[in-house]
Amino acid sequence: MIVEEIKLDKLNAEFFIQEQCRAISSEVGNGTSVNALSGGVDSSVVTMLAHRALGNRARTFFIDNGLMREGEPQQVVSTMSKLGVPVERIDAQDEFFKALKGKADPEEKRQAITETFYKNVFGRLVRQSGSRSLMQGTIYTDVEETVAGIKRQHNILAQLGIDTEEVYGYKVIEPLIRLRKPGVRAVGKALGLPEEVYNRPPFPGPALVTRVVGEATRERIALVRKATTLVEQELAGVRAFQCLAILHEDKVTGVRDGKRDYGHQIEVRCWDSKDAVTASPTRLSFELLERLAARITTEVPGVVSVTYNVTAKPPSTIEAV
Amino acid sequence: MIVEEIKLDKLNAEFFIQEQCRAISSEVGNGTSVNALSGGVDSSVVTMLAHRALGNRARTFFIDNGLMREGEPQQVVSTMSKLGVPVERIDAQDEFFKALKGKADPEEKRQAITETFYKNVFGRLVRQSGSRSLMQGTIYTDVEETVAGIKRQHNILAQLGIDTEEVYGYKVIEPLIRLRKPGVRAVGKALGLPEEVYNRPPFPGPALVTRVVGEATRERIALVRKATTLVEQELAGVRAFQCLAILHEDKVTGVRDGKRDYGHQIEVRCWDSKDAVTASPTRLSFELLERLAARITTEVPGVVSVTYNVTAKPPSTIEAV
Repeated sequence: MIVEEIKLDKLNAEFFIQEQCRAISSEVGNGTSVNALSGGVDSSVVTMLAHRALGNRARTFFIDNGLMREGEPQQVVSTMSKLGVPVERIDAQDEFFKALKGKADPEEKRQAITETFYKNVFGRLVRQSGSRSLMQGTIYTDVEETVAGIKRQHNILAQLGIDTEEVYGYKVIEPLIRLRKPGVRAVGKALGLPEEVYNRPPFPGPALVTRVVGEATRERIALVRKATTLVEQELAGVRAFQCLAILHEDKVTGVRDGKRDYGHQIEVRCWDSKDAVTASPTRLSFELLERLAARITTEVPGVVSVTYNVTAKPPSTIEAV
Repeated sequence: MIVEEIKLDKLNAEFFIQEQCRAISSEVGNGTSVNALSGGVDSSVVTMLAHRALGNRARTFFIDNGLMREGEPQQVVSTMSKLGVPVERIDAQDEFFKALKGKADPEEKRQAITETFYKNVFGRLVRQSGSRSLMQGTIYTDVEETVAGIKRQHNILAQLGIDTEEVYGYKVIEPLIRLRKPGVRAVGKALGLPEEVYNRPPFPGPALVTRVVGEATRERIALVRKATTLVEQELAGVRAFQCLAILHEDKVTGVRDGKRDYGHQIEVRCWDSKDAVTASPTRLSFELLERLAARITTEVPGVVSVTYNVTAKPPSTIEAV
């Protein structure tokens, strides 16, 4: 392991913030930094640290890849704006969907997103900005899982021995790399982020693409987006670590208006977990599960079947793709 | 609708048996009949009626298509043998797997089984037997769903306007066509079938093929067979209408021994229903569901994820394919 974890009971959030701000200042020097905000707790904390350390020498971009949840781009930008942190929203939807075209393999899809994000969209923004420093929200769990070969995490190239300065043309600063999720939340709280941000359930970097089995077209992303909205609405009162909807590629037989209707299947997952390393399915009531299934099959076009994942992690993972 | 239903409250099982035996005798005349026994309640009742009506002029075949559950061929033959009904077991596994090769579409798979069953294996047995009468366990629900376009039921060709005498070379007798499942069970009980047969949960004609999304190879059938055994073992104490395991074609990400393991997903369904026309998911305990998932991911090679279907029928159907 290249970095050493800071355990939650050893974490002093205020001290951590000061230390990281000093480190960022020293790393960036008189230059500027750029970072990409996804809206998740990790990148929100990084955004706050960057702006606290560098003031207006920090530039934060929200890249609208067309793969986010309903209303998410607007919401993320407006939350930061209310905290006095300016965020530049970049519409890159066409570029991402073009890169995803024809790709069904999970690794190829992740690769397409990584490449589009780093080499094209964000790389271009960084080059245009003239900045040489990129800040990222990599956390300790990402490092562990990547080293273990479970995940191919797109944001820890350095950990994989890739020289990001040479390959992508910029330097990566990862202020959260020694924390697990609870530590990041504590730091977010100390930074003054609103609770809905610092306690926000995790959402993957490749966004809804990890929730579509097979090719992630605009149409399929729209279906899983709609299902995700319903899952998040219906499970809003459940204290779970994370909940999600997955659009399967397999079609199953259904019946609609008395006729055979060969349609889509949505898988719902809802996890109890502390840090995503292990997880167990949340024991939801069948009343809730059946109501959710009824809404999804009624409100998401073409869906005839809804399942709930009942496997523990391991051997399951949080996301499906 | 071509035939008129006999409602359960109007059914006199003893009278029905006498009436059907008379009808069978009159239809078969001095000839012989053949029928295929799958082990389900419908074909078991037909077998009993045939042997009661015709004695040793009735021949019953059990066609081992390689698509049945664990130990099923042995069990079905031995149960009937104990009742004094001789059943001839025919090994036709190679023929069925050859017909299924390369077929992923549900309709094509069902078609392949129908053709192999009727035109090849059973047709050949009927021709060799010299009999002109084929008895089948079609029930009223099959007719309804086929007429409605929900199902393409392989055993009611006559109802679809196909002249079976011309197309396949024999005549079809369907003594149960006016009954729904509870009526068939009542008749089975009156015929002296053991309870595990007359109350046996339904099992589809195309057997485990309807529980494999995509191509039904020997290997994939073996996987879903193993999962089916576990589901039936773990849910043996649950009073459900039907329970089943489905092997999906979609692969999902899992983690095994600390490493990424891209593997299979098994979907479990368990239904509360009276007659399969409508159904709702059985409200199993999470303790049971999680234990089942743990067993399936441990005991069925390559499975990393297990889901439970939470949709009502409609819009779901009982089987997936």
